[in-house]
Amino acid sequence: MQLPTYPDVIAAAERLEGVAHRTPVFTSRTLDAETGAQVFIKCENLQRAGSFKFRGAFNALSQFDALQRKAGVVAFSSGNHAQGIALAARLLDIPATIVMPTDAPAAKVAATREYGASVVLYDRFTQDREQIGRTLASEHGMTLIPPYDHPHILAGQGTAAKELLEFTGPLDALFVGLGGGGMLSGTALSTRALAPQCQLFGVEPEAGNDGQQSLRTGSIVHIDTPVTIADGAQTQHLGSYTFPIIRDLVTDILTVSDAELVATMQFFMQRMKLVVEPTGCLGLAALRRLGQHFKGQRVGIIVTGGNVDIDKYTTLLSEAS
Amino acid sequence: MQLPTYPDVIAAAERLEGVAHRTPVFTSRTLDAETGAQVFIKCENLQRAGSFKFRGAFNALSQFDALQRKAGVVAFSSGNHAQGIALAARLLDIPATIVMPTDAPAAKVAATREYGASVVLYDRFTQDREQIGRTLASEHGMTLIPPYDHPHILAGQGTAAKELLEFTGPLDALFVGLGGGGMLSGTALSTRALAPQCQLFGVEPEAGNDGQQSLRTGSIVHIDTPVTIADGAQTQHLGSYTFPIIRDLVTDILTVSDAELVATMQFFMQRMKLVVEPTGCLGLAALRRLGQHFKGQRVGIIVTGGNVDIDKYTTLLSEAS
Repeated sequence: MQLPTYPDVIAAAERLEGVAHRTPVFTSRTLDAETGAQVFIKCENLQRAGSFKFRGAFNALSQFDALQRKAGVVAFSSGNHAQGIALAARLLDIPATIVMPTDAPAAKVAATREYGASVVLYDRFTQDREQIGRTLASEHGMTLIPPYDHPHILAGQGTAAKELLEFTGPLDALFVGLGGGGMLSGTALSTRALAPQCQLFGVEPEAGNDGQQSLRTGSIVHIDTPVTIADGAQTQHLGSYTFPIIRDLVTDILTVSDAELVATMQFFMQRMKLVVEPTGCLGLAALRRLGQHFKGQRVGIIVTGGNVDIDKYTTLLSEAS
Repeated sequence: MQLPTYPDVIAAAERLEGVAHRTPVFTSRTLDAETGAQVFIKCENLQRAGSFKFRGAFNALSQFDALQRKAGVVAFSSGNHAQGIALAARLLDIPATIVMPTDAPAAKVAATREYGASVVLYDRFTQDREQIGRTLASEHGMTLIPPYDHPHILAGQGTAAKELLEFTGPLDALFVGLGGGGMLSGTALSTRALAPQCQLFGVEPEAGNDGQQSLRTGSIVHIDTPVTIADGAQTQHLGSYTFPIIRDLVTDILTVSDAELVATMQFFMQRMKLVVEPTGCLGLAALRRLGQHFKGQRVGIIVTGGNVDIDKYTTLLSEAS
C-alpha cells in the first residue's frame, strides 16, 4: 500500500464520526503559569477503550471486505492495541483473536475478553508472537492488523490531532509520545495540513530512543526492548510506513526520563484530576522540561492513553517526585 | 437573608460566566451497561480549585460591598471550601484568611497559601474554629463566609445542576452527595425549575446520616463528627438555609458505605480515567447500589470534587474492591 496522506485522515475521521469520542481538550492555569505557554491537552485517555488506539483500529477494520469480515482479525498486543482492536471488532461484528503473553496483566486479558475477543496466550520467552499471528492469519484466513505499521492505522491515529487543531486553530508547537510512531506519523499528516508552521515533536523514553536515533541517522535503527515504565513505547523500531513520514515531517524527537514521567503522572492526578498511563505522559513531560523555550506560545499536547493497572498506578504515584 | 430561589441561581450563573469552568458531562457505556440506565456524570472534580466549592465562594464574594472587599473574607475549612474561597478572593482582589487545623494535610495548607490566602492554624482539640473565625471577623471587620449555610453559597452551588440539566434536558433522577447540604439545596432549586418531575436524591456516608435523619424526622438532627473516608461529608448537621429547601424539594436521602465509596473511586480511576475524592463518589455509589430501580431511565450524577492527597488516594485504591 502507498504512504497515506492527509485526505486519508479526513476519510478516517468520517468513518469515526459518531463512533469514536471527540475527546475533550483541557487547559490548566497551573500548567500555563508553570510553563509560560498556553497549553492545550487533548485527552485520548478519555477515548473509548482508554486510548487513541481505537481510532486506528476502527479505521482499519471498517475497510475490511466481506471475506475479511467473515474470517476475522488477528492482532498481537498486551496493551492498548489489543483493546482497541477488540472493541472495534465487536462494534463491526468481526471475530477478533488477540495474541497476548502469558504474563500479561490479568486485568488486560480480562478487559480484552470482555470486549468479546478470543485471547491466545503465548510464552514470550519461548514463542514468537509474530509467528503465531502469521500462522493464525494464514491457516484461518484472518487479517493481521499490526499495532502501528499500517496505513489505515496511521491515518486513523491522525484524527486526534485533526480534532485538536480544529478546536485550537494553528498551534506553535505540538508534543506527541511515540513507540512505533503510528500516532506521531498520523499527527504529522494532520499538522502539516492544518498548521504547517507548527513545530512537531515526538517524545520517547530515554531508555528507548530508537526513533531519535533513526531521525538523526536517516534510517530505521533497531534496539533491544527498552526498560522503561512507558510500556506503550517499548517498541524496538519504527515502521516502514511511519518512519518516512516522521523523517520528512517531524521537527525533532526528544526524550524524557522515567522520573519525569512519574512527576507528570502525579501532576495529572493532583492538578488535573486525570488518570494518565506512563506512556501518555511523554508529551507533557517533554514540555515541562523545555518549557522556557515555549514561553508565550500556544502548545498542544496529546495524552495518548489512560490504561494503567491500579497496582502500577499506585506504586508510581507513591514514588517521591 | 431570605431563602434563595431559582432566580438567585440564574443570577449566580451570570456572575460565574467566564470565571468558573462549565465542567464537562461524561457518559460511560460500561456504566450504562452495569446500571441499565443512561447516566450523565457532571464533573465538578474538573472545576477550578478542584471542586464545586468555587462556584458558591465566587458568587458570595462577588457580592461584597466596597467595605467588605477592603476588610476581607474569613473562612474556616480544612478542605475544598478553603481553596474555593482562597481562589475566588484572589480573583476579586479581596484579602482572605483561612482558619485551618494544625493537623490539616500540608498539601492543602500549601495549596491554600498558593492561592494567596493567609492561613491561621488552630488546634482542633483545644480551640474552637468558629470562635476564632468570629473573633477575626469582629476585630478586623472581616466577613465570615460559612461553608454551606449561606444563601449566596447555596445559589452558587445550584449552577452546576443548572448546567447539567441545560445540557441533558430533563432527567428522571439525579444523585448528589451532601455534607451540610449546600450543593444539594442549590441543586434542588435548579432541578425543581428545570426538571420538576425528576427524582432528586441526596447521598450521605452511612456513618454520618444526619441529613437522612433530619429529612425523616422533619427537623435538623445533630450528630458527632462521623468517621468516614468522605471527609467533605463529615458535617454534624444541616443548616438553617439548606434544611428547609432539602425538606421541601428533595425526594429522599440515601446512604452508602465507605467500601462502596472505595469501589466507586476505583471505578472512576479504571474505567473513566478520572480522579475523584471519596466524597465525590457518593452520588454514583448510590446509583450503583440501586441501579436496578433506574433501568431505562436517564440519570444524572454530580461528582463534587477531586481533591484527595496522593497518599490517601493510593491507599484507598489499593484496598481490595
